[in-house]
Amino acid sequence: MSPPYKLSYFDIMGLGEPIRILLSYGGLDFEDFRVPRENWPNLKPSMPMGQMPVLEHNGKVAHQSMAICRYLAKQVKLTGKDDWEDLEIDAMADTVNDFRQKVGKYHYESDEKLKAEYEKLLFSEVAPFYLEKLDAQAKQNGGYLVGGRLTWADLVFVGLIDYMNFMAKKDLLATAPNLEKVKENVANVPNVKKYLETRPNKH
Amino acid sequence: MSPPYKLSYFDIMGLGEPIRILLSYGGLDFEDFRVPRENWPNLKPSMPMGQMPVLEHNGKVAHQSMAICRYLAKQVKLTGKDDWEDLEIDAMADTVNDFRQKVGKYHYESDEKLKAEYEKLLFSEVAPFYLEKLDAQAKQNGGYLVGGRLTWADLVFVGLIDYMNFMAKKDLLATAPNLEKVKENVANVPNVKKYLETRPNKH
Repeated sequence: MSPPYKLSYFDIMGLGEPIRILLSYGGLDFEDFRVPRENWPNLKPSMPMGQMPVLEHNGKVAHQSMAICRYLAKQVKLTGKDDWEDLEIDAMADTVNDFRQKVGKYHYESDEKLKAEYEKLLFSEVAPFYLEKLDAQAKQNGGYLVGGRLTWADLVFVGLIDYMNFMAKKDLLATAPNLEKVKENVANVPNVKKYLETRPNKH
Repeated sequence: MSPPYKLSYFDIMGLGEPIRILLSYGGLDFEDFRVPRENWPNLKPSMPMGQMPVLEHNGKVAHQSMAICRYLAKQVKLTGKDDWEDLEIDAMADTVNDFRQKVGKYHYESDEKLKAEYEKLLFSEVAPFYLEKLDAQAKQNGGYLVGGRLTWADLVFVGLIDYMNFMAKKDLLATAPNLEKVKENVANVPNVKKYLETRPNKH
């Protein structure tokens, strides 16, 4: 029998990694289908919005990484204690993603002149601002992003930070000890620890 | 007594409009606090991530527009019938927002040469692709985006489409009759109709 979940994504961490970590956290058996770049043009038209990650479950297909993470968080009980806390978690997940997009804007720019502009803006203003705000949030919540305990916002953060460090070509958490603590707290959950130790190490 | 909700945003539709429509739909009394551009630099440091929209409720403050919309959708019963349908709604909301961002990338570019490049890409590829996919989704769901009935994904779409048309300088729905139908279905809900007729008409 095939596993109940199938995740399709490129053979990198990227936007698939928070989903892989959530599935692993919950001990949910999944097929980690990694699409080689050369096969993507053929596969693209079959994906809901021509994008990955895509999650299949019970014969149904879903796209959009944060929507998938939120769904899985409900299955593995990593949501908030009430609607307002869910709002805070959602806001943190979207904020981490905004930050990820801004790092990506620099990383993926092919025009050298523009890239130099984006680099300057990213490292002089954008990254310090996000890191200060997020680190303060983690400090206030004792090494978690919301509610003083583990939620899926923490798993999203940890799922994306290695990818972000790779794109930024530096350790973004070097000056963010409380975010480093979030990373440790997630990495020390036995199911996650096991996954992190055995995952393909490809940004 | 002040209203139970306060929305802070610029004096435009923008990312605040889906929130205003959701509050109006539910008949939730709210202060529509519109910040003049010239006051923003003073106010910015007091906002959670230096951004708006921001929602205040019960002495608490929240940011991130889609997170706020999802919270309000729960209060006014516009969510899915189960976790998977919520995932589909979330994916649609994020997809509409991705599209909005791509239109914004063109609209907000100040470099004339880059803007011309973005314009070409947007109108020859990006917009037709999104509109075809979203229109097919609306067709399949009988004039709604998910589940064949009104959900908050429809309100997000209607809340953003005027802003997107303004940025695109054209009626994006001219070739998308089923999305036009979504717009009509939302606009015909009495509480929404009343709001749309009386709102400040500022993109």
